[in-house]
Amino acid sequence: MKKIAFLGPNATFTHEASLKYFGENNEFIPINRISEIYNKIMSDEVDFGVVPSENSIGGSISDTLDLFIKTHLKVYDEVILQIKQNLLSKLTDKSQIKKIFSHPQSLMQCSGYISANFKGVECIETSSNAKASILAKDEPDSAAIGPKLCAKEYDLNIIEEGINDSKKNETKFYIISKTYGNKKNKSLIIFSVPNKSGSLFNILKVFKKYKINMTKIESRPSKTKNWEYVFIVEYENSKEQKNNEVFIKKLKGECDYFDYLGHY
Amino acid sequence: MKKIAFLGPNATFTHEASLKYFGENNEFIPINRISEIYNKIMSDEVDFGVVPSENSIGGSISDTLDLFIKTHLKVYDEVILQIKQNLLSKLTDKSQIKKIFSHPQSLMQCSGYISANFKGVECIETSSNAKASILAKDEPDSAAIGPKLCAKEYDLNIIEEGINDSKKNETKFYIISKTYGNKKNKSLIIFSVPNKSGSLFNILKVFKKYKINMTKIESRPSKTKNWEYVFIVEYENSKEQKNNEVFIKKLKGECDYFDYLGHY
Repeated sequence: MKKIAFLGPNATFTHEASLKYFGENNEFIPINRISEIYNKIMSDEVDFGVVPSENSIGGSISDTLDLFIKTHLKVYDEVILQIKQNLLSKLTDKSQIKKIFSHPQSLMQCSGYISANFKGVECIETSSNAKASILAKDEPDSAAIGPKLCAKEYDLNIIEEGINDSKKNETKFYIISKTYGNKKNKSLIIFSVPNKSGSLFNILKVFKKYKINMTKIESRPSKTKNWEYVFIVEYENSKEQKNNEVFIKKLKGECDYFDYLGHY
Repeated sequence: MKKIAFLGPNATFTHEASLKYFGENNEFIPINRISEIYNKIMSDEVDFGVVPSENSIGGSISDTLDLFIKTHLKVYDEVILQIKQNLLSKLTDKSQIKKIFSHPQSLMQCSGYISANFKGVECIETSSNAKASILAKDEPDSAAIGPKLCAKEYDLNIIEEGINDSKKNETKFYIISKTYGNKKNKSLIIFSVPNKSGSLFNILKVFKKYKINMTKIESRPSKTKNWEYVFIVEYENSKEQKNNEVFIKKLKGECDYFDYLGHY
């Protein structure tokens, strides 16, 4: 049985992703701040952490990326979850609903559904979908929008399933730990380059030379100097591991700062 | 007198940036959603919009970038504001404070100050600093954290100034409109590249060839296909405009999608 800290409270999408990846027979601990999850791994209080890394519509979760620079923890694996929003309420008839609680991102993801079905109904932003569910439980004539798990956890009915406007909505979660995982399809690195013209070009030249395909490039503020950046790059691994070692050595030669975050 | 829509409510940092850029003798209209500001420019209800584009610690504001793809509006200029958080209250003595209201980002920016000065005091997240100020006005023994403007607007005392932990905290705002501005120090473009190995490299090769220095590169989900991206790049302009036209033509040749957002 493993000890796993996930971004809580209970019944969040991250909770759903954690259950999907590890299975139910483990100890799952809800933690309300992403940074606290990293801390709990650092201090060996848990074996793994599960945090959202990127949504296919909203983009990357900055906190998750920034914390790798601070902690040097590893990405052990990734898990992708299709995001399905649901209308949850103590009621069973949606025509009686006068108030809808949810996290701003969930409200945004369902804005088409809400305007088609709930003209004039008040939408109230909450800090999480779980919080919304608690409010919907206590307040008459109200509903929450959130994951299915919330219905079970907070004793609500699922009035309508899959109400998010885009059905292509997916979120990637990182499984983080102190050690690297075994899968090697993709690698994740983080680096900064000297602040001079052509630095990033020199990095991409190394990728080109070794015929390695980048699947993602992201920039984040360096936090040491305003308007300077670190880059987070994901790439597909070639079959020959030997070549990869030379590739990483060449990359390091072009960087001010370099950390190999993991493979999965 | 110009009509300017800014990200409201009144007394936000965007309000402060708008006054700094345009001066007081204009009509300023607070709008609570970034997308609504773009809509008001599109429909000619206002001349300009002011929206946050990037914070030196938190990074880019995704909504602002994504809306350029939807609307094809232009960046007319940019303005940088040093972010100064302040402790605001009906009280004058901070030892009486039992509750602090603020936006999650502001609480985070002052977390060192809060733990040093307010051990055990409850911190409550609000949707904006203005909302926090309204709550602090009505609730006894409470305070808000926010911009100076909030004190004036919501009739609160400034108990302590500049309480944010990092003094290097700056936010960039874009002045957006239907037309390009006159300054030409930097340019901003948005593009997507064919989904094949080396596409981004080919773009950077064009920058290298014309000796043009990128000052920022950012990726955002394409929203048409999961895990594909558009890139937003800012670069310094060379003195010879003629050369720049050829440069942009060459860039366009490597892109699936290209839009010249503006210069400033």
